[in-house]
Amino acid sequence: MRVLRKKAGDQILVLDGKGGLYTCILKDSKPREVRFEVEKEEQWDGPEHHIHLIIAPTKKIDRMEWLIEKSVEIGIQEISFVRCMNSERPQLKIDRLQKKAISAMKQSMNLFLPRIHDIIPFQEVLTHSADNVNKYICHVRSGENNFLLNVVKKGRSYQILIGPEGDFTDKELIQAEEHGYTPVSLGENRLRTETAGLVACVLLNALQVKN
Amino acid sequence: MRVLRKKAGDQILVLDGKGGLYTCILKDSKPREVRFEVEKEEQWDGPEHHIHLIIAPTKKIDRMEWLIEKSVEIGIQEISFVRCMNSERPQLKIDRLQKKAISAMKQSMNLFLPRIHDIIPFQEVLTHSADNVNKYICHVRSGENNFLLNVVKKGRSYQILIGPEGDFTDKELIQAEEHGYTPVSLGENRLRTETAGLVACVLLNALQVKN
Repeated sequence: MRVLRKKAGDQILVLDGKGGLYTCILKDSKPREVRFEVEKEEQWDGPEHHIHLIIAPTKKIDRMEWLIEKSVEIGIQEISFVRCMNSERPQLKIDRLQKKAISAMKQSMNLFLPRIHDIIPFQEVLTHSADNVNKYICHVRSGENNFLLNVVKKGRSYQILIGPEGDFTDKELIQAEEHGYTPVSLGENRLRTETAGLVACVLLNALQVKN
Repeated sequence: MRVLRKKAGDQILVLDGKGGLYTCILKDSKPREVRFEVEKEEQWDGPEHHIHLIIAPTKKIDRMEWLIEKSVEIGIQEISFVRCMNSERPQLKIDRLQKKAISAMKQSMNLFLPRIHDIIPFQEVLTHSADNVNKYICHVRSGENNFLLNVVKKGRSYQILIGPEGDFTDKELIQAEEHGYTPVSLGENRLRTETAGLVACVLLNALQVKN
């Protein structure tokens, strides 16, 4: 009430990140406590598709924060981080990124919070992935013929792997293919990791709206 | 030579923003002057398509700088700024944005510098636009059926208009349609101005690679 200069009787919107939207009326506040009453309760359905981005985090973490912010705005259901041979960053502070997702969700008035997972080794991504998912791995050496929108199969659930600046190794690429990942390209230009993540997110969302 | 710690005999790459790539050898330097010799001269062809983004600048200029940086990386040939009824920013410093484009071009190793134009009134955009261009106007009220990739015609030259946070007015929309602009949407989520610009850029580039 102090920061937003609200007073008793004012309306606020509360969301739970799972499609619930609550119109509330502020009652009163103590220094560390606010009371409000739910006036109206709405439940929205999420999208029918599920996009899971799995990405090698960049050295500078603000580029990952940026990706989370923008992908929440465009539409993403799940983000994981992966440790590859050429990774520049072996660890990350996942709670900071989760907070970023919450603030991006509120700012873009999105009702669904994506799940954000901590970093896991490349091998674990491969062995943990489900069978009924359309799986893709982006890599620079993939040609135009493998452009994501040319090879993607329309489905309910997508998983897309984005490598580090040094790209996936040949060995990682072969292993991914053995686990059912289709190699794809994201277009003609060479993209930075976080831009590649965003472009993948835009294209997979486009597929849902496209005739 | 000082900033990059180069010395005589070292190689540098020079580009002209028009597809020319020059491999050069540094000769010597004075405090305010560097001499080099061109060792190898290459000329690359630009893309066959032309994407012209026309956008209402955001209040905070860093969001436009961000758009320029990312769209240069993804691929853009021309950017103009437009002053609309609901515009939040009537002027801008175009030379700063042009410098941003140059540094983005160098950083992404792109050989082509997009043309960046100063802000003009909405009416002027409409009356100045050529006939042999595929013209689109993005607006929030446009439904899923008008999704850009569902209505776009494959061509050589595209112009796409992105409005301010308050969107285009009904009057502006009608005028644009009278001048041959097709109303389109960019997907299901409501996007901020700079994100809409980027998504439009990704989708129009995708169209070039798509079968």
